[in-house]
Amino acid sequence: MIDLDLIGIATGNPDHLTAQAVQAMNSADLILLPRKGEAKSDLIDLRRAICTRVLTGPTRIVAFDMPVRDAGGDYADTVDAWHDAIAAAWSAQIAVHLPDGGRLALLVWGDPALYDSSLRIAERLQAGGLPLRVRVVPGLTSLQLLTAAHAIPLNALAGAVTITTGRLLRACGWPDAADTVVVMLDSGCAFDVLEPHGISIWWGAYLGMAEETLFHGPLATVAPRIAAARAALRARHGWIMDIYLLRKDGADVA
Amino acid sequence: MIDLDLIGIATGNPDHLTAQAVQAMNSADLILLPRKGEAKSDLIDLRRAICTRVLTGPTRIVAFDMPVRDAGGDYADTVDAWHDAIAAAWSAQIAVHLPDGGRLALLVWGDPALYDSSLRIAERLQAGGLPLRVRVVPGLTSLQLLTAAHAIPLNALAGAVTITTGRLLRACGWPDAADTVVVMLDSGCAFDVLEPHGISIWWGAYLGMAEETLFHGPLATVAPRIAAARAALRARHGWIMDIYLLRKDGADVA
Ligand SMILES: C[S@@+](CC[C@H](N)C(=O)[O-])C[C@H]1O[C@@H](n2cnc3c(N)ncnc32)[C@H](O)[C@@H]1O
Ligand SMILES: C[S@@+](CC[C@H](N)C(=O)[O-])C[C@H]1O[C@@H](n2cnc3c(N)ncnc32)[C@H](O)[C@@H]1O
Repeated sequence: MIDLDLIGIATGNPDHLTAQAVQAMNSADLILLPRKGEAKSDLIDLRRAICTRVLTGPTRIVAFDMPVRDAGGDYADTVDAWHDAIAAAWSAQIAVHLPDGGRLALLVWGDPALYDSSLRIAERLQAGGLPLRVRVVPGLTSLQLLTAAHAIPLNALAGAVTITTGRLLRACGWPDAADTVVVMLDSGCAFDVLEPHGISIWWGAYLGMAEETLFHGPLATVAPRIAAARAALRARHGWIMDIYLLRKDGADVA
Repeated sequence: MIDLDLIGIATGNPDHLTAQAVQAMNSADLILLPRKGEAKSDLIDLRRAICTRVLTGPTRIVAFDMPVRDAGGDYADTVDAWHDAIAAAWSAQIAVHLPDGGRLALLVWGDPALYDSSLRIAERLQAGGLPLRVRVVPGLTSLQLLTAAHAIPLNALAGAVTITTGRLLRACGWPDAADTVVVMLDSGCAFDVLEPHGISIWWGAYLGMAEETLFHGPLATVAPRIAAARAALRARHGWIMDIYLLRKDGADVA
């Protein structure tokens, strides 16, 4: 039997780990760290730094190459093939390093529930016959880091919130009836599809990390500044992760 | 100058606090604890237990009576009057206990961004002329505790998520185009307004606490069980807090 802990580690600041996450890391026999190529080596370094900081015993740490998602083709198909490849990569590591079972931990960026494939990969392994018991250790999300950094509420007073992706915002526009929209997984400034009048934006990149960068204000004014900063930051670091909250002005006046 | 830390403390499990939350509590001169009446005395007891567990120095802890929201009248008006009353209560405590300024901490249930009035109260005090510097320390939300306890993703594959209230679900029904809906602040089984066919529910009450209770399954089958359990639990404990995720079946097949 493999006991798999999917441990939310927030977004790079070790002070954002919970005591439960630290305990789970320390009780693992093996921690698997995904390697995502040269450009994103910062991210594996951050995970290693977190391990160094919180591990008190001889937990084994093994890095493995994460399969890369195929860029072309049908979206659902490529995601499906990609999840299969990740499942195969986990399986191979388990076969080598935990042949007699044991406690395996994966350090999941943010919270394991939010736009992360780990739970779906674990389900595939179970469906394939691997005896796997899954526990989720929740962690702070990039969304909470965004609202905390700006010191703003997520919801308008008594209002609803839609969390969506850059892809969906581009395809479908502003979600019907929403007054607050949070956009994640945006490959670049999908807010450009919106008529900016009457909308404010709170934007953050590299949240929780040394490079944290924030902008906020009326979308019409701030959008070009974000686009410029985003391009410059991306060029400088080789990668960027950003998230933003859009709110209709006056939404709080119920 | 008052330095106000709004510290997210998750929902009752002290292992869910982050290291940053523990540091913020320990660097406060004063921690104010809201007293919400006899029926909810469990909640102030939990906050006291968290203080006992994490405080290492002589931080002062003061409990104060939280004003109660008027049940009748127009919703926006009563919330407005209630926020004024809370702002006055904070002011009075600050005047007595931190007359020369200092570092004030409030322990906010879950995360301060999610359906919580503290940021709005702080804004009122600033607008009223109090020199107040606000910092938000993020905490795990009841929503993350729900998805972790059930070991489920929040979003369907590449899908959007709507977070809403019981009041809005009753008033507006299933949000257009949504495949995942999370309902909070439900005074009782608002899911009853939905045609249950093709919807599954993941429900949790007292998440993170000793009384944690979970149900999940097809809404048609599980709704009556939840309604019965909810009434019994509420009668037994004198109060209940619950949250649930509703998903259209097949939403993951993109
Ligand atoms: C694959 S999702 C993972 C989300 C993660 N599970 C969480 O809880 O935040 C990656 C997306 O999360 C957001 N994100 C993650 N880390 C971030 C950070 N440090 N700063 C800004 N956005 C971040 C971005 O929108 C990014 O495209
Ligand atoms: C005023 S809101 C505060 C939410 C809080 N700030 C958070 O981050 O979870 C209260 C609502 O949160 C949800 N909630 C809070 N604590 C909960 C718990 N321990 N179990 C289940 N639901 C909870 C319920 O929907 C409740 O009506």
